[in-house]
Amino acid sequence: MDKINTRVSELLGEIKKQKPLIHHITNLVVMNDTANVTLFLGALPVMAHAHEEMEEMTKNAGALVLNIGTLTEYWIEAMLLAGAVANKKGIPIVLDAVGAGATSYRTKTCEQLMEKLHISVIKGNAGEIGILSGAGGKVRGVESVGSSIDLVSAVKKYAAKTKATVIATGKRDIVSDGKIVYVVDNGNSWLPRITGTGCMSTTAVAAFCAVDHDQALASAGALACFGLAAELAVKKKIEGPASFKVAFLDAIYNMDERTLAAGAKITEI
Amino acid sequence: MDKINTRVSELLGEIKKQKPLIHHITNLVVMNDTANVTLFLGALPVMAHAHEEMEEMTKNAGALVLNIGTLTEYWIEAMLLAGAVANKKGIPIVLDAVGAGATSYRTKTCEQLMEKLHISVIKGNAGEIGILSGAGGKVRGVESVGSSIDLVSAVKKYAAKTKATVIATGKRDIVSDGKIVYVVDNGNSWLPRITGTGCMSTTAVAAFCAVDHDQALASAGALACFGLAAELAVKKKIEGPASFKVAFLDAIYNMDERTLAAGAKITEI
Amino acid sequence: MDKINTRVSELLGEIKKQKPLIHHITNLVVMNDTANVTLFLGALPVMAHAHEEMEEMTKNAGALVLNIGTLTEYWIEAMLLAGAVANKKGIPIVLDAVGAGATSYRTKTCEQLMEKLHISVIKGNAGEIGILSGAGGKVRGVESVGSSIDLVSAVKKYAAKTKATVIATGKRDIVSDGKIVYVVDNGNSWLPRITGTGCMSTTAVAAFCAVDHDQALASAGALACFGLAAELAVKKKIEGPASFKVAFLDAIYNMDERTLAAGAKITEI
Repeated sequence: MDKINTRVSELLGEIKKQKPLIHHITNLVVMNDTANVTLFLGALPVMAHAHEEMEEMTKNAGALVLNIGTLTEYWIEAMLLAGAVANKKGIPIVLDAVGAGATSYRTKTCEQLMEKLHISVIKGNAGEIGILSGAGGKVRGVESVGSSIDLVSAVKKYAAKTKATVIATGKRDIVSDGKIVYVVDNGNSWLPRITGTGCMSTTAVAAFCAVDHDQALASAGALACFGLAAELAVKKKIEGPASFKVAFLDAIYNMDERTLAAGAKITEI
Repeated sequence: MDKINTRVSELLGEIKKQKPLIHHITNLVVMNDTANVTLFLGALPVMAHAHEEMEEMTKNAGALVLNIGTLTEYWIEAMLLAGAVANKKGIPIVLDAVGAGATSYRTKTCEQLMEKLHISVIKGNAGEIGILSGAGGKVRGVESVGSSIDLVSAVKKYAAKTKATVIATGKRDIVSDGKIVYVVDNGNSWLPRITGTGCMSTTAVAAFCAVDHDQALASAGALACFGLAAELAVKKKIEGPASFKVAFLDAIYNMDERTLAAGAKITEI
Repeated sequence: MDKINTRVSELLGEIKKQKPLIHHITNLVVMNDTANVTLFLGALPVMAHAHEEMEEMTKNAGALVLNIGTLTEYWIEAMLLAGAVANKKGIPIVLDAVGAGATSYRTKTCEQLMEKLHISVIKGNAGEIGILSGAGGKVRGVESVGSSIDLVSAVKKYAAKTKATVIATGKRDIVSDGKIVYVVDNGNSWLPRITGTGCMSTTAVAAFCAVDHDQALASAGALACFGLAAELAVKKKIEGPASFKVAFLDAIYNMDERTLAAGAKITEI
């Protein structure tokens, strides 16, 4: 068992021990699922966006998720308020760039958030990260379509430029902090067939990042944990995406350190 | 196998081939389910309501869903902005009149949307369509209660008047474009026991309407596909509405052209 | 079979007979689940928060749920508008104090709602009720953490002070109207592992309160019904919290008067 796997599996143990609060300012489609994923991993979720309570809510969080899936100006303002508190307190911010590139409003919102806040982790699919990084890519609605860019290079360069950990999800997930690049090969073809699995994996990234300063390794560990749960789910009786989802969420809950250490497929390249 | 069934089953194949983007401005209760139904049928969902991105988001859509289940002024304004783009581009708009008649605000919002936009398909339960068409009916919350109007006649007349395809759902779904009337007899008694199945079937209607100009036939096909999935679901182990819902969503995903062609119960009357 | 169990089981029968409309102004995380719980119990849900329709929507309701899980000023205003109608019409209001104590905004909102409206039932976990009642307690996000107050005494005193029925949920649920105190021992350890079960039980409380004036007994009955469904769910094949949730929601739907009368564990202390 290699060193990376041992370390990321210990992070899962830390989440269950520390129970970090994950403050989500996230989209209306996935709130229930992301709250459950947070709980099932052993952390505590809270969804809140009222400006009046951003300071008090964020300051006690272990990580802050900013997900732009269903935006309005009020929500962006809430993100900026919460983000300022997170930055002041050294709480990691994970930005999920849902639909960046599909509209200029979403692209600009990501740019604005990155300009005004120190973002720890920027996460998107190949299309979203391709567009944000300037490497090219295409997004239709919230789906990446037909990108053929050199994603590893784009992720690494964008991470170096933004001083953040950058994640591009896909068949293989690419994670880089600008120096190290991890490739995560867990997961299966059921995951993209369900809405919100990208947002749910962001929640996992936030939970792992809440318990370790090495945000790239924590992110890779979270994605491995998430993908491995999908692999375990298909050993149950799956008759379609809805029964897969039940088995998958159960598998996230049942994931333990030993299983993760044995099954994580993380490669440093 | 009759001609109608062959045609609607081909539409299902077209959805899977074309993967139309379905832009939803919909209620907060059903967003996750309707996004999943869109994906499971083979189309791509996006939920977005920020005024700043309505133009860019809608212009790439194959269909636009306007669902008034949880309204505010901001959302109505978003519907008008998106609807104007849809009309300009010839993208079909499907209006789900959730709770019309329960409050005058909902009734008036439907009337306002129909006045300012060309709506391709107006859909509601018997009570909602009864009230909008002036034929009579009663809505309690979002449920139709005890209507005894001549629904076929009401639907046909209302369609002729509005120049839209009108759908009244119920034990038998009635669809008319003012000339042809289709009755769809698929479905079962589990569907109305779960929240949001009306909204989910609206998503199916939008996906089918995105791939064919004959909106009445496409609507009938969507409702047959949706109801047939419910019929197939009960062949699985169902112990209540939640396990039915899992099996039902799986069945939507597993629906193929041959099954739909064999099982659709669409009658032109 | 004791008298309390007979009475609360009759209330379940009344819900199925009367089908009261439960108007929810609730949080964005749980809307789908709470709508389904309402339907599965035999009542009718409606989720609405537009100021323009509060009067018409609330006046036909059997109960009004105010849940502060994801607040903004607009939603608080909607609660005040709907609450005023409920008070005028004698419709019970059930307030779920989600996250009270986690931020002063939530605590103050509860106080404001209680000051301006007559609340029939105030419900929270031990931490939330501990803080609102001034007995002490701690809330992290929306979870009660490590409270060691005398909860029975706190609930009873707070009920007497507010002239409301007060519910503090936990391993044992405490219910009091200031005179009588009920302890409900149904439920199991799966319930708190899923997001929103507190909010779902609030929906059950509202449905039961819609059909009986004795709000303390109705509340105890609702909590017994809810907890008993969790007990029955684990007799099915449970492999984690997601499969538990499916079985649990099925069990709510399948609950009948006889089962509830036989299984409710309500003690007057």
